[in-house]
Parts: sequence; structure tokens; C-alpha cells
Amino acid sequence: MTHLRAAQIEDEMDGDTLHEECGVFGILGHPDAATLTALGLHALQHRGQEAAGIVTFDGTQFHTEKRMGLVGDHYTDPATLAKLPGTISIGHTRYSTTGEVALRNVQPLFAELEVGGIAIAHNGNFTNGLTLRRQIIATGAICQSTSDTEVVLHLIARSRHSSTADRFIDAIRQMEGGYSMVAMTRTKLIAARDPTGIRPLVMGELDGKPIFCSETCALDIIGAKYIRDVENGEVVICEIEADGSISIDARKPNKPQPERLCLFEYVYFARPDSVVGGRNVYVARKNMGINLAKEAPVEADVVVPVPDGGTPAAIGFAQASGIPFELGIIRNHYVGRTFIEPTQQIRAFGVKLKHSANRAMIEGKRVVLVDDSIVRGTTSLKIVQMIREAGATEVHIRVASPMIFYPDFYGIDTPDRDKLLANQHADLASMCKFIGADSLEFLSIDGLYRAVGGESRNDTRPQFTDHYFTGDYPTRLLDKNGDNPGPKLSMLASKS
Amino acid sequence: MTHLRAAQIEDEMDGDTLHEECGVFGILGHPDAATLTALGLHALQHRGQEAAGIVTFDGTQFHTEKRMGLVGDHYTDPATLAKLPGTISIGHTRYSTTGEVALRNVQPLFAELEVGGIAIAHNGNFTNGLTLRRQIIATGAICQSTSDTEVVLHLIARSRHSSTADRFIDAIRQMEGGYSMVAMTRTKLIAARDPTGIRPLVMGELDGKPIFCSETCALDIIGAKYIRDVENGEVVICEIEADGSISIDARKPNKPQPERLCLFEYVYFARPDSVVGGRNVYVARKNMGINLAKEAPVEADVVVPVPDGGTPAAIGFAQASGIPFELGIIRNHYVGRTFIEPTQQIRAFGVKLKHSANRAMIEGKRVVLVDDSIVRGTTSLKIVQMIREAGATEVHIRVASPMIFYPDFYGIDTPDRDKLLANQHADLASMCKFIGADSLEFLSIDGLYRAVGGESRNDTRPQFTDHYFTGDYPTRLLDKNGDNPGPKLSMLASKS
Amino acid sequence: MTHLRAAQIEDEMDGDTLHEECGVFGILGHPDAATLTALGLHALQHRGQEAAGIVTFDGTQFHTEKRMGLVGDHYTDPATLAKLPGTISIGHTRYSTTGEVALRNVQPLFAELEVGGIAIAHNGNFTNGLTLRRQIIATGAICQSTSDTEVVLHLIARSRHSSTADRFIDAIRQMEGGYSMVAMTRTKLIAARDPTGIRPLVMGELDGKPIFCSETCALDIIGAKYIRDVENGEVVICEIEADGSISIDARKPNKPQPERLCLFEYVYFARPDSVVGGRNVYVARKNMGINLAKEAPVEADVVVPVPDGGTPAAIGFAQASGIPFELGIIRNHYVGRTFIEPTQQIRAFGVKLKHSANRAMIEGKRVVLVDDSIVRGTTSLKIVQMIREAGATEVHIRVASPMIFYPDFYGIDTPDRDKLLANQHADLASMCKFIGADSLEFLSIDGLYRAVGGESRNDTRPQFTDHYFTGDYPTRLLDKNGDNPGPKLSMLASKS
Amino acid sequence: MTHLRAAQIEDEMDGDTLHEECGVFGILGHPDAATLTALGLHALQHRGQEAAGIVTFDGTQFHTEKRMGLVGDHYTDPATLAKLPGTISIGHTRYSTTGEVALRNVQPLFAELEVGGIAIAHNGNFTNGLTLRRQIIATGAICQSTSDTEVVLHLIARSRHSSTADRFIDAIRQMEGGYSMVAMTRTKLIAARDPTGIRPLVMGELDGKPIFCSETCALDIIGAKYIRDVENGEVVICEIEADGSISIDARKPNKPQPERLCLFEYVYFARPDSVVGGRNVYVARKNMGINLAKEAPVEADVVVPVPDGGTPAAIGFAQASGIPFELGIIRNHYVGRTFIEPTQQIRAFGVKLKHSANRAMIEGKRVVLVDDSIVRGTTSLKIVQMIREAGATEVHIRVASPMIFYPDFYGIDTPDRDKLLANQHADLASMCKFIGADSLEFLSIDGLYRAVGGESRNDTRPQFTDHYFTGDYPTRLLDKNGDNPGPKLSMLASKS
Repeated sequence: MTHLRAAQIEDEMDGDTLHEECGVFGILGHPDAATLTALGLHALQHRGQEAAGIVTFDGTQFHTEKRMGLVGDHYTDPATLAKLPGTISIGHTRYSTTGEVALRNVQPLFAELEVGGIAIAHNGNFTNGLTLRRQIIATGAICQSTSDTEVVLHLIARSRHSSTADRFIDAIRQMEGGYSMVAMTRTKLIAARDPTGIRPLVMGELDGKPIFCSETCALDIIGAKYIRDVENGEVVICEIEADGSISIDARKPNKPQPERLCLFEYVYFARPDSVVGGRNVYVARKNMGINLAKEAPVEADVVVPVPDGGTPAAIGFAQASGIPFELGIIRNHYVGRTFIEPTQQIRAFGVKLKHSANRAMIEGKRVVLVDDSIVRGTTSLKIVQMIREAGATEVHIRVASPMIFYPDFYGIDTPDRDKLLANQHADLASMCKFIGADSLEFLSIDGLYRAVGGESRNDTRPQFTDHYFTGDYPTRLLDKNGDNPGPKLSMLASKS
Repeated sequence: MTHLRAAQIEDEMDGDTLHEECGVFGILGHPDAATLTALGLHALQHRGQEAAGIVTFDGTQFHTEKRMGLVGDHYTDPATLAKLPGTISIGHTRYSTTGEVALRNVQPLFAELEVGGIAIAHNGNFTNGLTLRRQIIATGAICQSTSDTEVVLHLIARSRHSSTADRFIDAIRQMEGGYSMVAMTRTKLIAARDPTGIRPLVMGELDGKPIFCSETCALDIIGAKYIRDVENGEVVICEIEADGSISIDARKPNKPQPERLCLFEYVYFARPDSVVGGRNVYVARKNMGINLAKEAPVEADVVVPVPDGGTPAAIGFAQASGIPFELGIIRNHYVGRTFIEPTQQIRAFGVKLKHSANRAMIEGKRVVLVDDSIVRGTTSLKIVQMIREAGATEVHIRVASPMIFYPDFYGIDTPDRDKLLANQHADLASMCKFIGADSLEFLSIDGLYRAVGGESRNDTRPQFTDHYFTGDYPTRLLDKNGDNPGPKLSMLASKS
Repeated sequence: MTHLRAAQIEDEMDGDTLHEECGVFGILGHPDAATLTALGLHALQHRGQEAAGIVTFDGTQFHTEKRMGLVGDHYTDPATLAKLPGTISIGHTRYSTTGEVALRNVQPLFAELEVGGIAIAHNGNFTNGLTLRRQIIATGAICQSTSDTEVVLHLIARSRHSSTADRFIDAIRQMEGGYSMVAMTRTKLIAARDPTGIRPLVMGELDGKPIFCSETCALDIIGAKYIRDVENGEVVICEIEADGSISIDARKPNKPQPERLCLFEYVYFARPDSVVGGRNVYVARKNMGINLAKEAPVEADVVVPVPDGGTPAAIGFAQASGIPFELGIIRNHYVGRTFIEPTQQIRAFGVKLKHSANRAMIEGKRVVLVDDSIVRGTTSLKIVQMIREAGATEVHIRVASPMIFYPDFYGIDTPDRDKLLANQHADLASMCKFIGADSLEFLSIDGLYRAVGGESRNDTRPQFTDHYFTGDYPTRLLDKNGDNPGPKLSMLASKS
Repeated sequence: MTHLRAAQIEDEMDGDTLHEECGVFGILGHPDAATLTALGLHALQHRGQEAAGIVTFDGTQFHTEKRMGLVGDHYTDPATLAKLPGTISIGHTRYSTTGEVALRNVQPLFAELEVGGIAIAHNGNFTNGLTLRRQIIATGAICQSTSDTEVVLHLIARSRHSSTADRFIDAIRQMEGGYSMVAMTRTKLIAARDPTGIRPLVMGELDGKPIFCSETCALDIIGAKYIRDVENGEVVICEIEADGSISIDARKPNKPQPERLCLFEYVYFARPDSVVGGRNVYVARKNMGINLAKEAPVEADVVVPVPDGGTPAAIGFAQASGIPFELGIIRNHYVGRTFIEPTQQIRAFGVKLKHSANRAMIEGKRVVLVDDSIVRGTTSLKIVQMIREAGATEVHIRVASPMIFYPDFYGIDTPDRDKLLANQHADLASMCKFIGADSLEFLSIDGLYRAVGGESRNDTRPQFTDHYFTGDYPTRLLDKNGDNPGPKLSMLASKS
């Protein structure tokens, strides 16, 4: 019995949310490797709540545990950690994008290679994963999962290089897309970030031992020191030498390109206390609220965040506008798993399962609701209705990011394009009417860029990737655009 | 596998928290009785996360389901609700005060009486429960649980009155303490509140059918209308008549006394959007912060709430002081159950499992931490340490309630008296030093009274009960002070 | 996930079987009390497979564990036994006669009395249980289960006697029916058998410590010595004295009557290696087969037992007739629980899920099938069909007990009277035709009496009870025949 | 929670037993494919009780379900079968030879090939599996399990042939050892048996649709017709043609050799009602008992089988010797899983957890115990002791197979060679003394050959394989004897 990210439950029901699939963590040479990995994954839990896996190597054998549910449900009791001995460890926490919740898809994946075992975990998506899978199968490989990670394992296995590091780089050169990856062998911990740097990955250190993880909050929980971001296109290979010392070798196998971090990490995914690309996420979100207050001011009595995502921007909006910040919506944190498949009667209570209006702060007031983003708009509609029923005289919505028009192909699970609010309406007025608000405004692209990086968008060389807003994809999309789909796969489905 | 109130996890480890044991809900004559009870209990989940039970009557037979875990984990799927047919229903959600988490202690309890079946659920505690239990056993009754509710059932069964209502009142007259109770028979829904009105209980209405529940938030979730509070010492008996209409009969069997609601409902237990005793809880908490800012001002750069309990008071403190409100502590909502019995290694990470410092809002700043209350102080100590490690130049703690000196006997689970911070130190300076803060201040009793009710404490006839602060208990304490403990009970322990 | 008595599975589907509800075990003063109780219950598992419970007393507190499923699934691992400390223990294994499989009905039951705690487990049924329950409720008691054991607890609690032993005897005097009972207090182990001695109960000894259990096989497994049968109408009270010695006090509170043990213990329920009423069960069953061969001889090629119940009688039949004994039916021991609620497709395979014909021993042969008893006949019908399909030229059925005409009221769960084969057909020929056999014969009443006790039935004072065959009930049937049913109970149903 | 083959439990504790690893089943073109596969696996449950898996293809997609535990625990409820749509199905039931009970090792295994998906299940073992695995890994494949089946998948994937059938045969040509295999693609069901025919495999037919399974008992349960044995070295390819008809293509890719079926199938593994190699197993076992009575007669009062394995031979022994056959040992069928890891106290009760002496048939008698085989002898020792304690005056052991001296490499899990009774003692007298019997005799090799096939062993061309008795292995043993072990694998261990 597990709990989903509470903030997504009623959105879940309507598909009115975005999901990022994964968080990764790896550590080399530490006696408490598995425990530290469990704690790191716990701090990264907001990036995926459905399942978590850890692999360790104890000097002789690899060990793995994979579990459905929260890290804290399984990986903290002595019995489980006792099954994960060793000083090298990588871990992964995931959100399942499909109905398939089978353990066999839970990362890290492991393979026995000629040069020894290797385990890999990744966050993100390969835009040529299917193309590569078909090539591999055509030359006699067998694929036992639907995971892109398995493709990476095959590419490594097939490399003609003798060292694992060279093989890994060989594989990396063939992959396209947006990803952050950690891998481990019997002596190495390897980290890699895609050439454009779409997904984040940072390097840290604890007791002189190297750590790689998706966000800095996973360093903070264990008291590890932040060293630097893994650079876009970089592969960092850490190895325990014969004398016990650790060597670090950083390479850039691909042609250098400018970094373009995913803006949605700032808007929604990353934890507010994380530092992503050198910028504090909470500050970026508060700046979005400040810029939004400047771009789309409104006369009102209270600024109310849509919890919890909208809170930092709402604080910024309130400070910039001088309108008081109040908790006008109270969130119920005790939303259990089965609310996802409730009876029709219960489903009808929708948004109220998670949110309730705090009437004393709403009644008779002009309310500004601040949210982080709008995907389909169905949740916004229900929240506006709830606020009106609580007696608000006016309801104004301010969204701390631009309108979403395009799908993502780098690991964010987006609804079908025609389900997006922005694509269902001709103009802002129509959207506002659909949602039932008195006014509706989105932050501008430039407002967002300035909130995050201090400067407006450089249209020639954009500082970030913003394709869901603009359609400007930072890589080619081979699987999507390829004209040679090859034989249809008849992959195995396992319901349990 | 269940999830505890996330806000209590690391306190759990140290026992540094207060628990209220229960929330209750009842509805009469509604075709969706069980579904509405499940939703009501979901809204009351903050009053108890360990287990929940529902009883219904379908015109012929009583039905019950009891489950460990969150309401949303079990009571929303069609299969479970299908086992609870009928139009009368009561439910209960509980926090276990003891190590015993056995289902047999989960309420509501049921008994077959001569006049028919009766089921009862209550929130609170009887101060003469053990005394009554011994009297009952001495006259040939058998007790199969350690629950006070079983004692109520015995008193009802032994009454010489013929009507269930009269029997219920007969039982009520013998009970002392602080409690709110809902009961149901084949045709009746009965609600009762203790003579002093220590625990809250409200009456509502949906589709013309009466509802009783611990807080108004359970009415809001189902769109029910608030009618009035059940008065202190009142017993309200609702009955379905032969013609299908519902009669309501309100009685006051005990000698009238002034109401004294528990102040901790305002300080900590009730949900911020609930209206308790006619007062919005969020507003009361914000007022506590405002009064605290006046009583104990401090020069600082940011006001940081200890989430989530301290947030409303921190907003009030910030507004009153003009110091900016910022989320300087980020809370991890994904804390799983087994963190309660973690390995020693993981236990060492303590407060960080749930809280992390948001360095960008802390570093180089003078920080005011606002918390709702301090019990043992062990958590405060760790939070101060965490804030200092994040680079704060000063850390000032402001507590939005007075110092706690005395135990509760009305349903709040308090640590041993000598574990309370206020009893371990001679003065405020010593406490402040223990916690490691630059300054530490508590709200005054009068400041709290004014925040809640607008007026200072009337020392002759206090408007609320504040015994944990003052030692002024609103009832006699028979079990505690009785000099005739009787034979020692050798009650049954069941570990599973 | 538990396993039912494999021999009953496909009968289960058709209700074509008899069930006995329980086995009991108790031991006093032994350091391994819980472990020995678990082993004793394991040996008594054939008397009930659905759930098992154990209570112990550790000198200060009572402890209990109750589990659905086999004893060997739960009660043998160190963690469970560690929860059952103490030197006094009783245990119970049960078959559920109703759809209610809730743990709250699993015995032993416990109650806190004025004189201290008491736990009781029983096998059998009270013929005035409902009558007593109504009397008790009418005088102010509360009943929380539907179990007769709870009634016993109430009678004990209400007794005016001061000693538990006297109270127990007081209660026994009011109970009618067929039962064997073990009870324990803080210092005593008490055993009781009904006045007619319908259900078996034996006394044994291990390391000088007294044991009571349903059958001698529970003594054999732990290497305990058989002392004697508890006599009909006897109450045996064993107590640990202050000096650690154990006193034994045997009483006969009811008017003496001749013993009449249940013949079905010999026909079907007891384990073949048990000694019941001084007679080896296997020998009795073999004698039934021998007598059957004499009463109903047949020319045939092979004697084939219907496994496993029919095997001893088939061996006797083969030895007496000179026809070879062969395993013509092979039994599948791996029948899992869910076969009880299978898909319709699987249900259609019926008897084959458990039994298969061993064609090499059947084809072209005249077959005598020997079974222990026939209840509804639906299983016999399918087995005959299976044997014919395997190529038998003739199929003769010989049943090692008489025809069943009447229901039991002493703890055997019998189908509705009109579902019994003997009540659905005018004569033997019609039954034989229904089942599809070439001939069908039942053992005579006298043949059965001689097989068990050596002598024909004494019609004036029958040596056993044989009411299911003859309608001659050994006690009055108050609940069944009472003309004053009182108010209808609206008992609580719990599905889980 | 699952149940092991009860007959192995206490042997389990001492490793005093042989295990066969698997049973397989496949069907093509039937609308109830998954249901029939579940029933077939249920009938084959004696070949493996730890886990079972089923794969189906529904015309578009492959589906699989894999579960720990008995077939009847999982695969008969509608919900599970609903997840397995389609008309082609294969299934597998296994006994785990190692501590690894992870689901990822449960067969059938599936792989996506260039030509489409393929699923494979096998019974037996490859004597060059490790050698092949190293070759495959050396050329860039990744291995994700420790299963030989994965090696077969790789060989198929790497074949240069275009048709799956040709690829399958290509793979088969490279495998050495003893195995029976079923495989399925989108349109085909393929069966294969090793060149020597060590493991059994039969072909049947239901409603005109082909079936392959390990034993005929899996045909009997579903009412399917036995067609013929798959011949040694044969590959049978059944395919659904475009018009819905089914084509059958039988090939023999390897050089023809004489068949040598494993004698242990007759001695112990196969179900008594199965026909293996054209011979009824029960008859073979009875013949073993008859031959044993002739070879090693003894004066005694009763013949007692060690249940259940020794029963057919005991019947033969009794018939040939004229000594009465009696159930002198009663078996407890309700042995739960956790008896495998019991407390030390419970472990001490050893053989009694499953077996008890039926004193009435033992006391004062000269007893002949007939068992099917002796592996380590530790169980025999305990049984003799139990029989003596029950009062036997003499105990003679007769074993219906020869002494075991050598390990198996074809799928039977044998203890270390020096743990075998026959290797621990210089002669029969020493073994007899160790076991504590008055006499001990084993069936001769020729006696066994005549019991099974009617003729003595042809030492030039043995009719069966009997390597565990004689050391005469029917194939080369590449993995065992290879002098080039290659790099040590660091395979992944998963404890759950």
C-alpha cells in the first residue's frame, strides 16, 4: 500500500498534471553506501513515488532490492538494508508513466558483461531509444523489458572497447535525448548528462567519497558537500584504485554545445530548497511570482496559493503587490492510494478530497489564486468553483509560467496535445471563461527567463529549453519523426 | 503499510509531540451513509491516522469494517463500501496511544443489547473509566478490550430503563471526563458532549439528514450545512420515525456548567479551515502570531514557519512585525511508516527525514522561527541546529502558545511530566540555551485567550480549559486520585 | 494464503462433506508451553484448518495470537512464538461453519473477571446456547461476538462463587449439548467434557506437567504420555500451587449418565493413529471394512479406496474378501485455497482437481470403491463417472458407515436435511441409480457398533451416539425446539 | 505464503531428498488456453511447488503472470485468468534449487526478437550452459538472470536463420544435457526433447488442438487424449496457418541415438497415474516392490509403507510376500511453509511434524518398512527410531531402488556426493547400523530395470539412464569437466 505525491491525486483522476519519471543517486567507496542511497532517494521522492530500487556491490557479488511504494516504506528497516551490503551503490526512484507497474521495470537494471557486471539507472528519455532497440534486436540481441535502460546495457555490451568506461562512452555517443544517468561496476561509479543538459545532475562529496544525484537536496539530507553540476555532455568516471584511493576522470565525448536546462525543473519538478544549475529553486519561483505581479497586476484583498506548488510564487506575488498572503486553501495530506480508483460517488467529490476552502479567508473577498502551471485546466476549474462557493466576490487566477502548447520528449509525461488547455481554446478569454475565473493571466516567457536566469530569452541561443511553451526542441526527435518504423513489437505485458 | 501524519514522524522518534486520539462522524437516514462517513473521516484524518472503522445498519443487520491505515487506503474502493449497506452509519478514526495497534481496539464498538444492537464511537477520555470498569467487573460483567467505549456499552446494557435513549443518558450520567460521542441503534443516531465541553462536536445537515462530527471540515468536504455546535453536557437523539421523518430530541441530563473548550484544539489539533466553538481556527492561529509579535518582538530578516503547524502563526507574526515571511524550511511529505523503526544509522539523520533548510532564505540572515508549541524541545533543538548549519547569523524562536507544565487527562496523549521542556529547566534562559537559540519566547496565557476569544482569561470562570499550561483541571480526576486501586488487571495483550 | 484440508476441496464446492469445528489443546506449568501448544494444534489440524489461536500467561499478563490459516504457516517461527511467553497455554484450531472468517471469532476467547483473567477454547456445540444468550442479554450483559464461548464467559462472570473453579462449574451446570473445553486462568488449567461425552478429550503428561487435548495424536507428536480420557461430565482442575507443585482436582458436577461418544469420530473425524475412547481409530475403520465385506460381498478384481478417508476400510475389505487392494485413485495434495472460488471453467473440472483415476488399475476391471461415508452423494457420482471413463467394466460402491438421515447439533456441520442423499431417494436402488454405480451398499448400524466396540447396538442404552443415522439424540434440543424465540438479534456482520 | 510438497518437509530440513525442478505445459489454438494451462500445471504440481508462470499471446500482445506458490493459490481465480487472454499458452511450475526465490527467475522467459516475441519454458539442465553463457557474453550479449533458459533465448536471437523454427533448431543443436522444452511465438507452439530423452515430454490433443506436457496426468485432468511421446532428439513445431488450421512439423536435428529415460522418473518423480515412456508408473513401482520381496525376503508381521512415496512398492511387496499391508505410519498433510524455518525447539520434533507411528499396527510386531529410495539416510534413521518407540520388535527396511552414489546433472537437485548415505559407509552393514534397522536391503539394478521395462540392464546399450546408481552418464559434462572456467561471474543477487 503506497502513497502518491499528494499534490497530484485529484489531478491524477483527470490526468491534469505533469510527471517527471525519476530521481537517481550513486555513491562510491562508502561503508554505508546503501543507507546513504536510501536517504538520498528519500530526499528525491518528489521526482517519483511509485517504486524504488537500489543496487550494491560487496566486493564479490552485486545485490539488488526493488520495491513498489515509498522509499520510507521499505528501505529504512534493518532487514532490507542488510540485504544490500557493499561500498558502491546506485539507486533510482520512479514514477510510472504507464499502467505497467511491474517490478521488472523498476531500475536500476543489471547485466553481466564480459568485463563484469554493470548496473544503470537513469532519469529522462532517449529520443532515439526505439530506433536503437530495433537495430539491436535486428542483430541478435534479446530485449526482456520495455525500458530504455536495457538499450543502454546492450550498447555497452556490444562495444568493441575493452574498458567499461570506454564502452559506456561508446554507448553514450549513440544515445540522443535528455537524460541523467548513474552507473556502477565492480570498482567504478559513472555519471553522465545529455549533451544539451536537459535533465539535472549534481556531484557531491561525503567523507571524501564521490556522490552523484539529481538534485542538491539529496546531498543536504546526508550532510554531503555540493561540488559542482555535472556539465552537459559530460561523463564522469570515479574508480576505486588498488590502494583504496579514488580517481576521477571527466570526459566530454560529444561535440560541445551550450547547455539548455529544462525550465520545468524550476517551475514545478525540483524541490524548492534544491540548487539547480546554480540557482535556488525557491528564489526562482518567488521571482516568477514577483514578475507575474508586475506583468499582470490586479486589485484584490488576498493572495491565495494553490498548495503546495503555487506557494513560493504566491509569496512573491504578495510581496510585490502588497496584497496579504493567506492560506485560503487547506490541503489534506492524508490522501491514500485507493482514492485513485474510487467509487463514482467518491470521485464526484473530486478536488475536495485534497483541498478545502478556508472560508474565513475567502468569504466576501477578492481573491488572487496563484498556481505554478496549468496543464488541462480541469483542476483549476474545480478550485475556482470551490472558492466561489466559499463566498469569494472575485476570483483572479495568476499562473507563474507560460501556456503549455507542446509535448515533452525528455522524460516528462505530458497529456495528449489536444487535451492541453492552451490548445483547446482560441484565446485567453475563452480559457478564462472555461475555468470560470474573473481574470486569468500567465507569466510571459521573458518573465520566466528573467525569474530563473536574470535575463530575457536569447532567441538565437536560448539559455534553457522551453519547448512545451514554444515548440523549440533542443534535439532532433528520431523516434517520433523517423519514417522507418520497422516491425511492430509485440512486447510482453505483465499485470503484476 | 500505512502512513502517519507526516508532521509527527521525527517527533515520533523522540516522543516530542502531542496526539489527539480520535475523530468521529455519524449520519442518519441517508442512502449513501457509509460513503459520506468515509469522506467525513477522511476530512478528520488529522485527528488520527492509525486506524479507522465504520458501522452501518441496513434495516436488518449491522455491518462493520475496521482497518489499520488511512481512510483513503481502504474506504473508498467499491468492494469495501459494498460491505457497508444501510442508511445509518457512524465512523471513527484513531491515533493509538499505546503500542497496541490491534484491530480489536479499533472503534466503533458494537454490542447486542436486549433492546437491540448499539454501536458507539468516541473521542476523548473518561477520568473515571477505570473506576467504573472495576465496579462493572465486580458485578459479573466480562471485559474483552481495554477500551473505555466498552465501559459505556456495559453501562447502557445495565440500565434499568427500557428505551435506548434513556439507557444512554443513564450511562452518560455516570461518566466523567472530556469526550464527544456518536452512537447508533437500529433507528437512532445519538450524539453527546461532556458537561464541560472539552472536546468539540458539531451538528450539520445534508439533504435534510442530520450529521454529527468532530469538526466542520467534515461537513465541508461533503457539502453539508453547519447547523450548530452540540452544547456542553448535551445529548441529541435523532430518530427515524415510522413515516420516514426524522425527529430530533435534545436533552441536558447533567447539571448545567459553563463550557470550557480545550485550547489545544485551537493551538494544534483542529484543521485550520474548521470552525471550532464558533471561531475559525486559522484566524485564531494567525492572531496568536500577531499577539506574539507584539509580546515578543525581535529584529530579524525573515520569519520562517516550522511547517506545517507553525505556518498560520508565522503569517500573523510577519504581518504584525513587517518582517518578510519565507519558506525557510522545506518539508518532505513522503515519509513512510518504517521510518518509525529505522536503523540506528538512519535514525541519526533525525529531523532531516522530514525537514530541510532552504539555504537561500537562511544564509547570512537573522531568522525568526515560529512554531505552534513546544513539548519536549528535542525537535526544536535539532531544527535550530539545522538552521544554523544553513548559515543563519541569528536564530530566534517564537512559540505561539504558553509553556506546557501539566499532563492532559481528556484524550490528549502527553509525555511524562518530567519529560516536558518546561519542567526540565528552571527558567526561560535555561530552555533557550538547551535549544541553542539566540532568544526564545512563548505566547502568554492572556495572549492566547485574546487570540482565540478576544478577551483575556477570566480567572474566576475561565472561558476555556488550559490545564496543560496552568494545572487548572476542569473536572475531578477520579482514576488518578482514587485511593482504592482494586485488584490489578491482567489484561490480554495481542501483538497482531 | 492458506490451504484447506485437501480431502474436502471439491466436496467444498458442492457442500458434500461434514465438518467438525475444532481441536483444543492445553498445558500447565511447562517452560515451552506455547511451542508445545503449537505442535499439539498441528497434530489436530485435521479437526479445523481455517484459523488457530493460542493464549499464554506469563505470570503478569495474558498474551494471545490468532491467525487465519494453518498452524504451520504461522506458529512455528521464532517471532510469533516470542510473542507468547509463559508456562500456561491453551490453543484452538477451527473450521469456520459460516461465511464469517473474521479473526474476532477465532478462539480462545478471553475475559477480564473480578477474580482475574480467564481464557476458554471449546470444541462442540451448546444446544441451549441461544436460549442462554437471550437470558444473559436480558439482564444487562453485552455480547460482542456470535460465539457460544462468549456465553460461557458470561456465565462464569455472573456466578456468585468466589473461586474460578466453582464459577466454571456453575457455568458448566447451565450448558447443555456436546462439548469438550479447555480453560486457563493465572494459575489453573481446567478441562471439561459434556455429561454424555459426545466430543472426545484426553489427558496426558509431559515432564510431569498435565496436558489436555482432543485426541491422543497431539500427545504423540510431543512425546507426551497418555494418562486417561477425561470422563463424560467430568471437570478436571489443575493448579500450580505456591510451592510450584501441581494439584489436580476432578469433579462431576452433573448427575452421572452413561457415556455416548460420537460415532463419526471413528468413521471420519479422528486421525487414524489416535486412540479415542480407548479404541484405535485405524483398527475401528479397518473393522468397518471387514464387516462391510461380510455384510455386502461382491465379485470384483480390485478394491480401490476413495482417498484418504476410505483407505483403512478398503484395506479391511480387501483382507476380508481376498480381492487385491490397489491405488486406483491418485490424489493431488497440492490443492490451493482459491480452488474454492474458481472460475466456472475450472469448476467444471470438479473432482479431477483433487482425484485422478489410475487407468492401469481400472481399465477392464470390476472395481469395488470403498468410501468412509456418503453425505449428499454428489462427489460419489463424479468419482463413479471418472472410474467408468477410465475403463472399469463394473463399479461397486461400499460405504463403511450407515446412511445419514438426520442433522447433528453437537458441533458437526451438516447440510440441510433435504440435501442428504438418504433423504432424497426412496430406497437404495434409487440412490445407486443416482450415483451411477452397479451396486451400492452401506454398513449396518450393528456392523458399525461391532467394528468400533465389539458389540451390537444396545437399543435400550446405546453405547455411542448415532443420531445422524437413527434420530436418537442423546440430549434435549432446547434452542431448536424452544417455542419462545425472544427478540430477533441484529448481530454485527464483519466481512474482514 | 506457499506450501511445499508435504512429503519433503522434514527431508527439507536435512536436505535428505531429491528435487526435480520443473513441469511444463503448452497448448496451441484453444480459446481456453490459459485455463487449460493452469489445470495442466496443477496436475504437474508434484514436479515443483515453489512458483508457477504462464504466458499467452492474444493475437497482438504477449501476456504473462508469474507467482510464488501453488498453481491453485493463484491461477484459478477469474481476475488472474482474465489477465491472460489468447489462444496460445505455455506454462511452467518450478522447484527452486537455490535460496533465490525471486520472481525474475520464474519461467517462462520472454524475449522480443527481430522476428517477433518468443517465450520458453524448460525442465532439465544443460551440461554446457555455463560454457555457452560465457561465449555469448564475450560477444556482447547481456545476461539478466542466472537461468539457462535465457541462454536459449540468446542462441535463438543470434541465429542467422530467418524463421523462428530454424532459429530454435539452431539453438537446440548447441545445447547439451537433459531437457524438455516448450516454446511459443505469435503463431507457433514448439516442443523439444534432448537427444538422449532423459526428461519426459508427451504430446496430446484436446478438441483437435495440440498439447505438450511433462506427464500424461496433465492430459488426464483436462480430458485430453494422449497422442504419443515426443521422441528423444525430436523438435515438434505446431503452427496456426492462415486458414486457422494447424500444421505439425516434426524434425530431428541431431544425430539419432537410443533413448535413455531417467529411471528416477519411475522411482520417485512422476505421478503414479502417469504413463512415462509407455509404462504406467504405479505398475512399475509395484513391480519394484514385488522384485524387492523376491530379492530380499524377510519374516515379518506387517508391511508398512513410508508414505506417500513408498506406498505402491509396499503394496507390491505385501502381495508378493503374503505379509499384510497396513498403514503403520500416518502422514500429516497440513504442513505449512514456515516449518521449513522453525525454531530450534520445533526443529527438534523433526520427522514427527509430518509422520506419526500408528501404534496399534506397530506394537509387538515385526515391521517391514518399504521406502522408494534413500538419499542421505537421516530421515530413515528418524523413522526407524519412531517405529521402535511405538513398540516394534523388529524393523526391516526395504528400499525399492539401488544405492545412490553419483550426482545428477540433468535437472535433479542432488546433495553433495559425500553427503550420500552410500558414500558415507563402507558397506551395507554399516549403513544398516547407522540407520538403526535390523536389516536393510536395496533393490538391485537389474531388479529395477525388470520392474520398469521387463528386461535386465543391457550393459552395452542401457535402456535407461541410471548414472546416480552407476556413474554411467549418458552425455559429456562440459561445464563440469571444462578446463577453462573463464572470468568469474559476479551475478546479481535479489533476495525478494
